[in-house]
Amino acid sequence: MTSNGTETPDTDRLMYEDLAVGDRFEAERTVTFSREGIVDFAADYDPQPFHLDDDVDDASPFDGLVASGLHSYCVCNRLATEAFFGRVAFLGGRGVDDLRWHRPVKPGDTLTVAVEVVDKRPSESDPRRGYVDVDVTGQTPEGDAAVTWRVLGMIQRGGSAATSEE
Amino acid sequence: MTSNGTETPDTDRLMYEDLAVGDRFEAERTVTFSREGIVDFAADYDPQPFHLDDDVDDASPFDGLVASGLHSYCVCNRLATEAFFGRVAFLGGRGVDDLRWHRPVKPGDTLTVAVEVVDKRPSESDPRRGYVDVDVTGQTPEGDAAVTWRVLGMIQRGGSAATSEE
Repeated sequence: MTSNGTETPDTDRLMYEDLAVGDRFEAERTVTFSREGIVDFAADYDPQPFHLDDDVDDASPFDGLVASGLHSYCVCNRLATEAFFGRVAFLGGRGVDDLRWHRPVKPGDTLTVAVEVVDKRPSESDPRRGYVDVDVTGQTPEGDAAVTWRVLGMIQRGGSAATSEE
Repeated sequence: MTSNGTETPDTDRLMYEDLAVGDRFEAERTVTFSREGIVDFAADYDPQPFHLDDDVDDASPFDGLVASGLHSYCVCNRLATEAFFGRVAFLGGRGVDDLRWHRPVKPGDTLTVAVEVVDKRPSESDPRRGYVDVDVTGQTPEGDAAVTWRVLGMIQRGGSAATSEE
């Protein structure tokens, strides 16, 4: 452990105090889903016929191969990390609520990500942390949501707040 | 598309009618998380310092390298597919609620999975489908939950129900 009790807060990243409800962060790039990438991910983590092959069942709600919902979630989490979670002093997620898939993601589809701060409050048990909840939207470049979820996050508090406030 | 309107329901898999609230399905194997696997997954989808390296920040709630929560979710979804989603005529998930991480997953940790049916009801818009919600628990072999979530799923209805009932 590097813990020594006197470490300076990480000032390269945004702290709890730097964030306000309504703040928005957008990924600076997009990701395009390839057929091979969709099939490889599904083979590892979600091996269902409609994520592995075009030859889907008659009753399937999908017309041909679609990406696993976990795949779009993971790829968009990478973009959300670049846009937000990696730019703040993020201490981990307590959980995720309301993970929803709004449209199928198919080979050739392109997504980007927007993150919005929807709630924040200090931790009562640890003055070095605050709770920050954010809504993540994985969307087409035209702004149509494909996958959305809310992260219940913990973010480090800044110097004075972390040692003396409240 | 293979759709021809006369296809026989997939009788190799459990249908909507075969499932009852309270039914439980357990994975027949475990997965052990390696340091390399944890770091590789995080580098792709969740590149945070505490998922990539042991040298974590002083304020981090984690003591050393921990797996991304998305990683434990994905690995346990693979086990849940073997135990349940791949054994039923699954038509996809409408969403996931209450994704929660209860303990850190570290290199060398082993998880298995249990799935329990918690709700079912026919689709009003499509007689070929029913809604089935299941709780998934990724847990240690001793039964301590590490990650839990609820899948809001759709499952194919059987022959007579799918063509004539209600």
